[in-house]
Amino acid sequence: MIFVGFGFLMTFLQRYGYSGVGFNFLLAAFGIQWALLLQGWLHCYREGYILIGVENLINADFCVGSVCVAFGALLGKVSPIQLLIMTLFQVTLFSGNEFILLSLLEVKDAGGSMTIHTFGAYFGLTVSWILYRPNLHHSKQPQSPVYHSDLFAMIGTLFLWIYWPSFNSAVSSHGDAQHRAAINTYCSLAACVLTSVALSSALHKKGKLDMVHIQNATLAGGVAVGTAAEMMLMPYGSLIVGFSSGIISTLGFVYLKPFLESRLRIQDTCGIHNLHGIPGIIGGITGAVTAAFANSAVYGEEGLIQAFGLRSKLDSSMQANLQAAGLFISLAMALVGGIIVGLILKLPFWGQAPDQSCFDDAVYWEVPEHERTALRPEHTTLRPPEP
Amino acid sequence: MIFVGFGFLMTFLQRYGYSGVGFNFLLAAFGIQWALLLQGWLHCYREGYILIGVENLINADFCVGSVCVAFGALLGKVSPIQLLIMTLFQVTLFSGNEFILLSLLEVKDAGGSMTIHTFGAYFGLTVSWILYRPNLHHSKQPQSPVYHSDLFAMIGTLFLWIYWPSFNSAVSSHGDAQHRAAINTYCSLAACVLTSVALSSALHKKGKLDMVHIQNATLAGGVAVGTAAEMMLMPYGSLIVGFSSGIISTLGFVYLKPFLESRLRIQDTCGIHNLHGIPGIIGGITGAVTAAFANSAVYGEEGLIQAFGLRSKLDSSMQANLQAAGLFISLAMALVGGIIVGLILKLPFWGQAPDQSCFDDAVYWEVPEHERTALRPEHTTLRPPEP
Amino acid sequence: MIFVGFGFLMTFLQRYGYSGVGFNFLLAAFGIQWALLLQGWLHCYREGYILIGVENLINADFCVGSVCVAFGALLGKVSPIQLLIMTLFQVTLFSGNEFILLSLLEVKDAGGSMTIHTFGAYFGLTVSWILYRPNLHHSKQPQSPVYHSDLFAMIGTLFLWIYWPSFNSAVSSHGDAQHRAAINTYCSLAACVLTSVALSSALHKKGKLDMVHIQNATLAGGVAVGTAAEMMLMPYGSLIVGFSSGIISTLGFVYLKPFLESRLRIQDTCGIHNLHGIPGIIGGITGAVTAAFANSAVYGEEGLIQAFGLRSKLDSSMQANLQAAGLFISLAMALVGGIIVGLILKLPFWGQAPDQSCFDDAVYWEVPEHERTALRPEHTTLRPPEP
Repeated sequence: MIFVGFGFLMTFLQRYGYSGVGFNFLLAAFGIQWALLLQGWLHCYREGYILIGVENLINADFCVGSVCVAFGALLGKVSPIQLLIMTLFQVTLFSGNEFILLSLLEVKDAGGSMTIHTFGAYFGLTVSWILYRPNLHHSKQPQSPVYHSDLFAMIGTLFLWIYWPSFNSAVSSHGDAQHRAAINTYCSLAACVLTSVALSSALHKKGKLDMVHIQNATLAGGVAVGTAAEMMLMPYGSLIVGFSSGIISTLGFVYLKPFLESRLRIQDTCGIHNLHGIPGIIGGITGAVTAAFANSAVYGEEGLIQAFGLRSKLDSSMQANLQAAGLFISLAMALVGGIIVGLILKLPFWGQAPDQSCFDDAVYWEVPEHERTALRPEHTTLRPPEP
Repeated sequence: MIFVGFGFLMTFLQRYGYSGVGFNFLLAAFGIQWALLLQGWLHCYREGYILIGVENLINADFCVGSVCVAFGALLGKVSPIQLLIMTLFQVTLFSGNEFILLSLLEVKDAGGSMTIHTFGAYFGLTVSWILYRPNLHHSKQPQSPVYHSDLFAMIGTLFLWIYWPSFNSAVSSHGDAQHRAAINTYCSLAACVLTSVALSSALHKKGKLDMVHIQNATLAGGVAVGTAAEMMLMPYGSLIVGFSSGIISTLGFVYLKPFLESRLRIQDTCGIHNLHGIPGIIGGITGAVTAAFANSAVYGEEGLIQAFGLRSKLDSSMQANLQAAGLFISLAMALVGGIIVGLILKLPFWGQAPDQSCFDDAVYWEVPEHERTALRPEHTTLRPPEP
Repeated sequence: MIFVGFGFLMTFLQRYGYSGVGFNFLLAAFGIQWALLLQGWLHCYREGYILIGVENLINADFCVGSVCVAFGALLGKVSPIQLLIMTLFQVTLFSGNEFILLSLLEVKDAGGSMTIHTFGAYFGLTVSWILYRPNLHHSKQPQSPVYHSDLFAMIGTLFLWIYWPSFNSAVSSHGDAQHRAAINTYCSLAACVLTSVALSSALHKKGKLDMVHIQNATLAGGVAVGTAAEMMLMPYGSLIVGFSSGIISTLGFVYLKPFLESRLRIQDTCGIHNLHGIPGIIGGITGAVTAAFANSAVYGEEGLIQAFGLRSKLDSSMQANLQAAGLFISLAMALVGGIIVGLILKLPFWGQAPDQSCFDDAVYWEVPEHERTALRPEHTTLRPPEP
């Protein structure tokens, strides 16, 4: 499921659709196998065999989701070999991080706000920071969409939007928690769309909407509700989460993305900081707060034990502290891991494209012949309309 | 599910794809929240809380489906603010109509032929009639598809086609009724495709197929079988329904749509009258007829009670009368409601686009720069090929 | 499900997208009804009624899948009437072949490697051989994709890729076998993507990737694992199957397809020989080998009976022989049936397009006006850039 969504979300660049879909497909296929092996060794190794079930496939999917997020920051600037190496390391780090959070700290993170989105986004941003290309504007292919490529990207958005409730509830325990997760996510997503559209229009000089915000900010609500989705967030709570994450994400696209690029030298092609980074942190905090207010009056005695596994000793404020700790550990792992992997990827023998060939499919793909020749003259003759 | 289908079905206009997908997305997100609240107040209000379950989400989805249908008639001619206002009122009216039909009259309408399609279509058409724009042909953007936009619309068609069996069977009681609904819908849709294609070719002077018929008329079978889907329509019955609705829908596109536009001053952008209006009425009648012939020989004693809740007093002809009454109430609500909402939307301060900017994304969206400038000269220079 | 995938996989031709999607839709709707009737008469005929359940719908779907495969070889060269006639015969032959394999020989073929893919591919290829058009290169529309049409085709690929595990496990008995089928398919597909991409790059002079390989060869793993999916192939086994089928399929696209076309006079538009033909045979052989090694140590006493229905007499080597026999019967039926149907289709009154109108939508479809006129001059003026 995830691959379709993420893949098409990345087709918005006018001459980079093949790579957006294709490389995503490649890293997903590679990442899943590596994640299956790694998670098998960590969790299900019995007498020389790895036991595999549908659970493992879903977990491997989630792990690859995190790599797709990080790929979003690097889209158009890395070679497929660099991508595969990044996938190799990131899956390893992800599995380590997940093991610490879920198994050691017993943090709850059903929708992966922390383990998938926060980790993936800041990992990708750190790698992008290390691989900074100062002359990216020399690229022959503009880093902008065309009409049809935006529509392809909308396929991705709608896919992700529709499957997000299933995504956030996939690993929750069946029954109450799973239902809660789906409904909370649904409400949060719906609220998020409204605020994204409203703000996108309000921030534009002429009140027009920006397709980039619609494609991305509308999904922030799903990210932000990830951790708390299976908890007793209540529909009103998830509406508030969706409402605020839509606002923050759109603001991020308008103000923060240019700032990151010019000042902090972080080039974030898809704007993952605004779609996954900040909403992921919001999600982590929301999870901690919701956990802090968990008590048997809301969940029922039995429900509380089911939801958090809280016995007599661990009370809910302890759980909240652990949730917060999980968020910081994810961030730390992402930053340290990102720097190391970024330095490895900076080594000059991975077949990087030069600056002027970024965002261009023709470097890695056999592009239909007459298009390559046809499109260039068309543009040059048409922009200055007949000299 | 619904949003993807309806959204992409509306991308067929060459310069209105952003709005087709985007506004649909917006009204869906808004409509769902409003429908959840309204239906919660009507049906599930307990001690200050609204109880929400997956059932409610599906019902809210259906309600929004009806708004999407109505949007089809207005596509390209209304501003997003008008759309949101229309959604606000239509969801309210829909909930009222549904309450009368399903709760008071105990009408059966599993696939919503009456509540969703008939109501949505005639509501939209009435609003479109009130908002009649006599100079619509002055629009700078032609109201016609291009090659790729038609392919995008086919994504929508295939999606709707595939999910229609699940759609029609979603709220049926589990077990027999749900199975019946899925199988009947499936048969009806398959029959409908054949007659649509055959008639589309037969009505063309050179025997060519028209993409518009394929995109729309092929779905009419699903609409027409909606009410009767969970009843004992038998596969042969649903084949007949699909067969005839395919014919009527295609005939409607060829003969009725131009007539409506020129004589009755109803501009129906997507042709919803032919896809939802007439097939919806067929569906309502089919439902009444099928209910009239319901007896314990076909359903079994127990099955009859399960299917209709028929006890000793209410016999099957009574149920048939109620079904017919439900159809007329839906139509009446649609016409009266449509006139009122249409008049409200005619107020001049909702940011309507002038006639010449209809069907043009650039009014509401930030459209990629060079396309706007590039596409115009290209067309003008190429149509008269080098003077 | 299948239609979306196959339909969009066939949109890669630049001026044949309408037909790819539309004709596929048409033959699917027709084929399903015919298959329901036929399979109903063969398997579920009771007292004048055909009993229909969800099982039957899935089986009819599979049957149509086989027709879609065969259509791939003929894409762009046959008229819709020829297609319907082919569907009529192929569904009949398919049902006969399936009856012999599954009911008489009790062969296991959960994912249809033999019944669907091998049969469909060689049937289509034989028909294509009979309908050989020596002057196909005179076609006005080149048999090559454009940028956007390749992206549409990727929608199809990703769809098929995602639904393949459900597809291969749909008719397995619930529980263990179904789980095994899904997991084995998943592993095989993931392995197949990696080898396809690697080989596609390795075989290109400049190391570039070819979109055709990514669209097609990545799915070969799902085909090749079809028969053995529900058996105890073990994840390592399915990785090996996916690995090798990815290699063979890509090699087939690069070396075998031109050879077939120039020497054997078989024009295979979509390259189904490499996606369905060879991987189907691999799948049949894998199934036979896996069945040969089936024993109660691996499956457990009870599991063995469940999986194969093996009682005391039929041992596993017997089952392996039957599997191999099933493969040969499928091939023989495909060749003989293909020759007969091909000769019928060669009759001159089915409205075939002349050679120069192949791969052109405008023969059968109402194509948007200004495109037809606009695209031609654009290409001619741009290829020799301003004389």
